[in-house]
Formats: sequence, structure tokens, C-alpha cells
Amino acid sequence: MSNPEIEAQLAPLRERVQEQGNLVRELKAKGAAELDVKKAVAELKVRKKVLEEKELALTPSVISFDRAKMEDLLKRRFFYDQSFAIYGGITGQYDFGPMGCSLKSNILALWRQFFSLEEQMLEVDCSILTPEPVLKASGHVERFADLMVKDVKTGECFRLDHLIKQALEKLSKAKDATAALQADCEDIIIKLDGLNKQELADVLAKYNIKSPLTGNDLSEPIEFNLMFATQIGPTGLVKGYLRPETAQGIFVNFKRLLEFNQGRLPFAVAQIGNSFRNEISPRSGLIRVREFTMAEIEHFCDPVLKNHPKFAGVANEKLTLYSACNQMDGKSAQQSTIGDAVSSQLVANETLGYYMARIQQFLHAIGIKPECLRFRQHMGNEMAHYACDCWDAEILTSYGWVECVGCADRSAYDLGQHTAATGVRLVAEKRLPAPKTVEVSEIVPNKQALGKTYKKDAKAITEALAKLSLDDIKQVETQLASGGQYKLTLPDGATHELDAETIGVKHATKTVHVEEFIPSVVEPSFGIGRIMYSLLEHSFQCREGDEQRCYFTLPPVVAPIKCSILPLSNNAEFQPYTQKLSGALTKAELSHKVDDSSGSIGRRYARTDEIAIPYGITVDFDTLKAPHTVTLRDRNTMKQVRIDLEAVVGVVKDLATTRLTWSQVLQQYPAFEQQETTK
Amino acid sequence: MSNPEIEAQLAPLRERVQEQGNLVRELKAKGAAELDVKKAVAELKVRKKVLEEKELALTPSVISFDRAKMEDLLKRRFFYDQSFAIYGGITGQYDFGPMGCSLKSNILALWRQFFSLEEQMLEVDCSILTPEPVLKASGHVERFADLMVKDVKTGECFRLDHLIKQALEKLSKAKDATAALQADCEDIIIKLDGLNKQELADVLAKYNIKSPLTGNDLSEPIEFNLMFATQIGPTGLVKGYLRPETAQGIFVNFKRLLEFNQGRLPFAVAQIGNSFRNEISPRSGLIRVREFTMAEIEHFCDPVLKNHPKFAGVANEKLTLYSACNQMDGKSAQQSTIGDAVSSQLVANETLGYYMARIQQFLHAIGIKPECLRFRQHMGNEMAHYACDCWDAEILTSYGWVECVGCADRSAYDLGQHTAATGVRLVAEKRLPAPKTVEVSEIVPNKQALGKTYKKDAKAITEALAKLSLDDIKQVETQLASGGQYKLTLPDGATHELDAETIGVKHATKTVHVEEFIPSVVEPSFGIGRIMYSLLEHSFQCREGDEQRCYFTLPPVVAPIKCSILPLSNNAEFQPYTQKLSGALTKAELSHKVDDSSGSIGRRYARTDEIAIPYGITVDFDTLKAPHTVTLRDRNTMKQVRIDLEAVVGVVKDLATTRLTWSQVLQQYPAFEQQETTK
Repeated sequence: MSNPEIEAQLAPLRERVQEQGNLVRELKAKGAAELDVKKAVAELKVRKKVLEEKELALTPSVISFDRAKMEDLLKRRFFYDQSFAIYGGITGQYDFGPMGCSLKSNILALWRQFFSLEEQMLEVDCSILTPEPVLKASGHVERFADLMVKDVKTGECFRLDHLIKQALEKLSKAKDATAALQADCEDIIIKLDGLNKQELADVLAKYNIKSPLTGNDLSEPIEFNLMFATQIGPTGLVKGYLRPETAQGIFVNFKRLLEFNQGRLPFAVAQIGNSFRNEISPRSGLIRVREFTMAEIEHFCDPVLKNHPKFAGVANEKLTLYSACNQMDGKSAQQSTIGDAVSSQLVANETLGYYMARIQQFLHAIGIKPECLRFRQHMGNEMAHYACDCWDAEILTSYGWVECVGCADRSAYDLGQHTAATGVRLVAEKRLPAPKTVEVSEIVPNKQALGKTYKKDAKAITEALAKLSLDDIKQVETQLASGGQYKLTLPDGATHELDAETIGVKHATKTVHVEEFIPSVVEPSFGIGRIMYSLLEHSFQCREGDEQRCYFTLPPVVAPIKCSILPLSNNAEFQPYTQKLSGALTKAELSHKVDDSSGSIGRRYARTDEIAIPYGITVDFDTLKAPHTVTLRDRNTMKQVRIDLEAVVGVVKDLATTRLTWSQVLQQYPAFEQQETTK
Repeated sequence: MSNPEIEAQLAPLRERVQEQGNLVRELKAKGAAELDVKKAVAELKVRKKVLEEKELALTPSVISFDRAKMEDLLKRRFFYDQSFAIYGGITGQYDFGPMGCSLKSNILALWRQFFSLEEQMLEVDCSILTPEPVLKASGHVERFADLMVKDVKTGECFRLDHLIKQALEKLSKAKDATAALQADCEDIIIKLDGLNKQELADVLAKYNIKSPLTGNDLSEPIEFNLMFATQIGPTGLVKGYLRPETAQGIFVNFKRLLEFNQGRLPFAVAQIGNSFRNEISPRSGLIRVREFTMAEIEHFCDPVLKNHPKFAGVANEKLTLYSACNQMDGKSAQQSTIGDAVSSQLVANETLGYYMARIQQFLHAIGIKPECLRFRQHMGNEMAHYACDCWDAEILTSYGWVECVGCADRSAYDLGQHTAATGVRLVAEKRLPAPKTVEVSEIVPNKQALGKTYKKDAKAITEALAKLSLDDIKQVETQLASGGQYKLTLPDGATHELDAETIGVKHATKTVHVEEFIPSVVEPSFGIGRIMYSLLEHSFQCREGDEQRCYFTLPPVVAPIKCSILPLSNNAEFQPYTQKLSGALTKAELSHKVDDSSGSIGRRYARTDEIAIPYGITVDFDTLKAPHTVTLRDRNTMKQVRIDLEAVVGVVKDLATTRLTWSQVLQQYPAFEQQETTK
């Protein structure tokens, strides 16, 4: 990983990060004011970013990669492209053409096999349209928002933090900027992440910031929720959103799923599906989009028992771990086996560690370069509101390190929230080591008195009383004992004062054998579009000496089409052989493409290379004579062998399912060297 | 199909349909007033419905089917259930649990193999969020609506036609209803389908119809578009909808797809994905929902050459065809080979016929009962606005005949609409038999004069001129020749009057070798949820003599889990064998379930039968002794055989992939008869 020359250049930057990291630790330790900590953390982030950008600028794969060239190929061969382009297109939305769609479904098929089947997960498929109360409970209605401002004349929207940063940078670079102004701007930019809505509005006013496009006035900051809103049903009364993640569908079904698993923990639930985020300004191609496919796993387990039965099988897997601590110290990521990482408590528990190792194995299997994959731990201040530990699988691309798989310990957050919102207890039970005796208290309503006093409200009162917690009941008891009244608030907001005549408290003891608890959730969450984009970058190549001949080295298991059939020319005699091969490949369930167009064979090889077809069968004049043979060509090496017509489909099947490697094929069959020449 | 006793009961009803069918034909032939035809057609539909209901009431499978019992099982074992149930649920939305999700993905995997792979279709994956202009062009913004009224106090909504029918039926059945009132009501009910918004409002007013739930007043009729609306991006200016069908994503990408196919026709594009319809009152479980998975194919072909290269391969497939003509005549559906149906022009062309045959083969392969499948032709008056011929694959369920796959000839409608809306020519080219000379006319703008006169509008004018049709150009020429001006309307609505000083018309001849045309589209469109529901009904069974033991006879290819592993008891000695079998099944990519819970073996068999597991391996005391053997049990027959431990996984793999049948297994391996007893 490390190269002494590069490390020498990075050393001063690392030091600056460490210095600031230590300051943050010190401030936290001595309980400094919140804003001071925030400011220090923001500066830490800036320094980290400078370090990371320098590191990337020195990384050969990033420097040499020609993104425009790859994007041109992706568009030209319709891997994917902007949606509704003939209508002017919509930013942040993409349509996958035949090659992109097939690559995506192959990745998902392997994912299913790798996770759902291998781990016997329960796979579900839940609704996209989600009613508001569900997303209120999950915290998305309140917290899943960015601040923005609008151009008051054109209605153009800007993300507020991006806008202020841009405006102040411009101000402080102006010729007439005083040192004091420059210092002010720098100070605000550093603090930006920590400022609230009013503070940001004050900055806008103080520096009289206008629309960067038109110079028009801007609106007050508006909180813009990133969920797409709609109405379910015709009344206009049921507000709904397109789900921003698939996870909530699993949480709300927890009871049914636990039952399906016969009440036992741990178990994992998987879901593949689309989610939606109404980004203010989508960018970076497939990396930040408004509609995307996720594959999520929610692994439910006992919060005090987060070991994993299959952990021993992955304990020796070596991962590149970029811990929160290393990030604070300006150090680089470090290699460690996941076994060591868990036993040293760097990774919180076996279950989290098991999934990290499996995520890595999966990403390697589809063709992500091992040296371009790391697991970065979230620092305390960047953790989502529900998480208690989180490691992101980040993949290095020309956009920098991109978060592609999140692996978070969501603890009991979501199940707890939905339990609180619905009153349905999303809990599991475990057998106690020994039965225990517990005291139970419950409210006993005097139904007759209640009915008489409260008439039609009596039912709602009885229901609300049944939901009181143990603490509430104690309070009731205290108040009734002192001759007072207990003030009960109903779900609709109405309050009633109840006295000893209408309610009482009953105590009893009972022997319990089981204990209820809210399970913890470990969540690996895969962004399929981001993984796919990274994979395309990692597998993009141009032929040495012919920069115009580009191709993708996608592994056969995910390649959209496994094999091409190319008759050497449009001679009619080739047709029966082409058809026979096509039939045999279909029967063997191998996707393939017959290219009998009129181009030269070299040109047609190049066309099949562009869409990543790993193997090509060529029917030529020797095929016509007994014993009938064809050539089989490997995309990556461009080498060819001569194989019997009857045997070739079996060989391709074995290659496509990784039962056979190309070097084994080279050993078993005679080489063939005539058809292809490159410059 | 036909039983003389049943036919005798149906004969008078058939006659009544035929009588009315003839009246409709007669009215149309003599060009009767539109309303009279509509009234006659509505009456025809009523008579057809009476006939169909009687037919169903006499159909044994429908009478004996216990829907409540099946639904209880589906819910209990979480095949699927209402979404967000812990929040009270949302009608018309369902979550698929582990068994439903797996059944669905197995159906889709087979669909991909059966259509995409076998026919080498181009599969795409397009955006769900669709900007308004696309759906304006397709006709959905204007036409995809139902009329409804609202309770003015509660906001409750009712579908207007359903509401009026219900109200008038109630009125005419009232004790004090006069004969005149009854006749009036009956007349309106018959005409209902043909009434427009104002006429329906008049009916509401005349009979003073109120909300059936509260008796409150109702609003005026409102057109309720069935698409879910939302805003794309933060400005609130880009209106979008959730797509109501996947097809439009294919049409707007037509140019790229044709290019991908190297400009050749015919070719087919497939897409699997979710679509959304905001039904006013969803009902009938999975049959009418708000969010559903479709699998659609758009087959693009030359409008004058709708033959199909693989038609000969299916020509002998026998289909049950319920033609528009038979429907008018009150006749029943008739059996015919698709070859005969196409050659007699009952089915419009080979391509339509080919897909009908393939649809049938697919539905049979997943387990739909052949006797419960028919193809019903749309009658002229029920065809969608875009279709020119349409046959629905209908499946008989306890809800009656349900449209599960539409197979429509959409002709050039959609490509034409998008071409008109965007100016991007969605056309293909074909080589002419001989080159021909054509006259071409074009507008030549005088750029200088235009620029001088129109300044910044000049560009828009030049662009608009370039889009004029040949007819428009002729008109320009006529007007300029007479010294007049041509009035040009820009896309933004502005108009300009152009004279001979600013524009001219140029004529030339050129030799063309190819001809442009808008391809025709044949569209098979599969409603996956409806197919799945029908399949569940068709495969639902109860054990003879034990009505509480229900199961599904799903074919192995679509069954959610292929195999169970059941240790006879929780004896620890069984565990290594259970684990070994589980590992071997995973390696063979066979989904399976280990049930080592404590119930009796018979009870556990019953549990695995409920979730349609076709095969079960039992580990018992004989397994522990060499030669190690297990039993293999077949769900449908409950028969068991004894098989060597090493061989059993291979046998299950062959059974699951239909390379082996259970009766072959019975012949090859010794029967085993001890473990299971039923009442």
C-alpha cells in the first residue's frame, strides 16, 4: 500500500490532522462549549479532506483513468443514460439499457445467492408508497431534510451550505478583501456544518448573498425534506412518501417475520428494491441519484449476544480498516484480519465483523479491485441518528472514495420507535436461566362508574389506561392514595381527571419463565448503482497501442452476455452452425449474442469487447469440414483456441460459472492465432 | 369443456346475448344515433354478464373453492399481507413475506428465461418517476381517470358509476317504487357506461343521491386521475407521476434501442418493474392494487410485415379462444390451434399469435390449470385508446375470469405520439426494393433578414421552420406566391407572420434507397400479482379426510423453497447429517429449510406442505448406520422413498429442475412407508 516517496509528501498533512484530532479530544475531555467542539471538528474535517485529496492526487489508478472516455462508451452502447432524454432529461434519473440492466440483474442474482441463499435469510418485498406515520416514527419526516434557499424571481433552488461556502470563498478571494473579512469568511466556512437555520440566515443577510446565477434576491432558508410526497387514495387526506430506504418495510413486519422464524433469534431479513430521494442538486452520475436500487439486510439479534455462528469461517479474512481513531490521528487505513479486529474490539462485535468480511468477499467476487476497497468507521459526530457503530465499505473511484455499502449497528432504535408509535410490541422473548417471580401492577377500571361519568369516552379511557407504563401506574397509585386525581391524556389530546371511584390499582406476583426484549439490528445496506458504477470504472481498459479500442474486463459471473457467436463472414453455409450454437447456448441458459453483421471479424470482436462479452465463438471455413471445430476467444487476453463444435458450449458454461479458468482452457486445447490482428 | 346438462341451463341466456348482439350489429350497420348504439352495447354487456355469472355458478372448481381458508393460510404463513398493518394498513398495498417474495422471484426468473433469454430480447430498467410531458403525450394525463364524488362533510370518495348504480338499484327496490320509477332506474343503469360527466351530474341531482355512508351531500363529479402525482426536484415546478405502466420507458428509449440492435427490425424489449395506480377503491386482494409488478414486452416490427420467424414452432399449440364474435353471439369460447386462428384471420397476425401461444406455454409451466385459461378478444368498444387488436389471457378464479396478461397490437400509436411531442423522429428505416426519386421541399430562411427583424426570436423561428411538414411547406409556398404572409406558431405559443423577404421555399429531387416508417408494436403485458394470486388458487388443496391440512401444489420450478430437511427428533446425533445436507443443498443452489423444531414429524411435514415445499428429506435412526440413507418425501402424493445420503441432493436437484419426475424416482428407489400417518 504505502510508497515511501508518497508517504513523505503526505507526512506534514498527516501531522496537521493529528494535531487537530488531539485538540478535539482535549476539548471533549475537558467539556468545552459545544460550539468550540463543533468548530474544532469542522476544522478536523477540512484537514482530513486536504489529506485525502492529496492522497488521491498521488494515486496512479485515479490519475490515469479517463472518465470522459468511459462515459462515452457507456452512453454509446447504452449501458445506461439519462432518463427521458428526448424530453430534455431529468437530472438524477437514469435508464438502464440492455447491458446495464443485465449487469445489474447479474449482480443482484449473485447477491441473492451470496447472502439470501447462503445465510438462509428471509427475503421480503414491501411497498414503496409509505404512509406518513411510519416515516414520522422512523425520524425521516423530521430529520431527513436539507436547508435550501430559492431565487425569489426564477424559483431556482440552491443547497444553503453549498451556496454560502461558494459565496464566501468568492468574497475572500476578491481583490479588495481585507484581512479581517478573509478571516471572518474562513471562520464561517469552518463552522458551517455546525450552524443552525437562523445562524445561516444571519450569514446570508450579513454578506447580502444573492443568487449566483441571476444576482436576484434569495428567499429565507427553507427546510426541504428529501422524500417525494404524494397522496394515497382519492381523498387527499392520506399523505404518503416514496420510501427513502427499504429498511422500514422490514421493521414494520418484524412480528410476522419473527413468527415465521418460529420465534427464534438471530435471523436476517433481506430486501432488494427501489428507494427515492429528492436530491436538491443530483450530480456525479450514478453516485447521487433520485431513484436507486438498494439491497438491504436487517439482522435481528439479542443485544447482549452479538456473536455469529459462522464467524470462525471468516476470521482470517484480511480487511483494510480505516478506524475513527486513525482518521483523528491522520494515519492511513490499516490491514487486519477481521478476527483480530473483533478481538481487539476495534470492530464492535462478531456479527458486524462477519458481515464486513462477507461484504468484502462479495465485492471481490463481482470484480471490485481489492486495493481500491476499504472499510471506514464513522466518527462519533457523523453517525446517523439511529446508529451506534457504523463501518462503510468505500470504493476508490475517480470521484474519490465512495460509500457503497453501509454496515451499521442500528441497535434497538427502529423497533423501539415503531413500538412507541403503534403500541404493537415489536419484541422477542428469551428463556430465563431460572424462572423468576415478578410483581405486576395493573389499573382496574370501575367500568360502571366510568361508563356513567364518561359515556362514549369510556372505551377510549379504558384503552389508554391499559397502555400505561409501570412508572405511570406508580404515579396513579401515589395520587389516588393521597386522595387526588390522575390526569389521563387520550391519544386525541383530550384529558380526563380520574379518581379512586373510577379506577383502582391491583398488585399481584407471577412467575415468569421468559423475558421480553427489543432485538438489536445490524444492517448491511448496499447501494447497487454505486457498486455498479465503481465496478465499471475498475474494469474499464483500453488495448495497449490502440487507445480507441476500449473494453470492460467484467468477470463472467456478472458480464451481461456470456458469449458471442460470430460467423467469419455472411456466407450462407455458416448459418446452420450459428443457429445450432445459439440453440445449444439457450438450452444451457447462457445469454449470448449472434453478430452476423457485415463488419470485419476484428471490428466485431472489438464491438463485443465494448459490451464486456468475455468469450466469443467464431464459425469459420474449418467449421464446415469434419471434424467440425470453432475457435473460442478470451476477451481479456484476446487469445484463441480451437475446440470441437460439440464441446464448446460445455466449456463456455464451465467458464461462465467459474468451474474452469481460461488458463486451464489454454492448456487443454490447441491455440489458434489467425483471425485477429490489432495495430 | 361442455356438459349437456349445463349447456341446457345456459342456452336461453346465450340466446338473449345473441339477440342483443345482432341488434348492436344492426344499429351500427344502419348508422344509428350514437346514444342508441351505446345503450344497446350496455345492454349487451349486462346480458353477457348474466350469462357469465351463471356459467361460473355452475363451474365445480369455483363452487368448491374455499377462499377464506386459503387466505387464512396465506396470512398465517406470511405469503403476503396488507402493508403497514401495525399502523392500521393501507388498502390496495401488500407486502410479500418470505414465501410470497420467493414465489414471485421464481416466477420472474422463469419469465426471464422463457422470454428474454429464449427470444434474445433487450431487457431494460427505466425510471419510475416520470415527468408530466411524457405522460401527456402518451394520453395518460388526459384519459387515465375515473369520475368520483366526495362526501362534502367527511371527504369520503366514491366512484361515481358504482355509486349511482347502487343508489338506483336501492330506489327501484323500495316498497313505494312506481313502475315508472323502476323503468327509469333500469334505463339509466343500462346506459350508465355511456353517460358523460354532465349527464351523470344530472342523474345525481334528479334522484337527490346522497352519501350511502352518512347521508351527507355529495360534491359535483370530479375527474380523478389514477396516477400518483409528485414533484421532482426542490423547485416545485417539475410535476411528475409514478408510472402507470412500464411501457413508456421503453418507447422514449426507442432510438437508442434500435441503434443497439444495429438498426434492424423486428426486435423485442422487455422490462420488469413496479407500476402504480391510485385506485379510488381497491379491492379483491392482489387483483386490484395500487402498487404492482408488471413484466412487459414491446415487440417492434414492420407494420406491413407482422409475421414471426418462430411461428411454425408454435402453430400447433391449442388455445381456448373467446372471440369478439362469439361474445356477441352468446357462444362459448372455442378451441383452436393458433396456426388455424391466424390463417383464418381470427387472430390478426403471426406475431400476436406467437406471443399468445408463448404466454399460454409460460402460464402452463408455472402451474396454471389449462382448463382455467382462455384468451378473450376485446370487443371494438372496449379497446384502449391506443390498441388496434387485443386478446387478454384470462384465468378463472373465485373472482371470476381475471385478466392476467394483455396481448395488444398498439400499432404505431405511442412512437407517433412521442415523435409529435418531442420532434425526435422515433422511426426505423427499410431498404426500398428499388431506389426511387423523390421531390424534396424545404424552407430556406433568409438569416440576415430574420435576425434583423426578429432578433433573439430568430433562432426559435428557424428551428420551428425546420420542423414543418410537407403540407405546411406547400401552404407556405402558396401564401408567399400570392404575396401574402405565413403565420408561424412557436412552441411557446407566440406567432410571427413571415413574408417572402424573410423566407423562401427550395425544391430539389433526390434518389432515396431507404424508406422511413414508424414501427408497429405488439405488447404482451403480464400482471405478476394477478398471475401469482391465480396460481395460488389453482394450487390450493386440502388433504382428503383432513380438511385442516391444507397445502399448495406449486410446481418445483416456482416453489419458494425446494426442499426441507427434517431430523426425526432433536437427538444430537442427527445434527452432523442435517448440517452436511444443508451445506450440500446450498452448494447445489437449492433453497431449503431445516426444521429441527420439536413437533412430531407428521406435524412438521404438514408445516412444510403449507409453504409448498415439494420435497422433504428426513434424517432418522437408519441414517446413523452405514450405508447412510435418508427418506425423500413428495408433497403432492406424500409417498416416500429411501435414498443413499450421498445421492439425495442430486435427485432433488434433478426434480427441482424438471430433469426427473417423481414417478421416475418411485421406480428407481425403494418405497418407505413408516413415518407419516394421516387421519
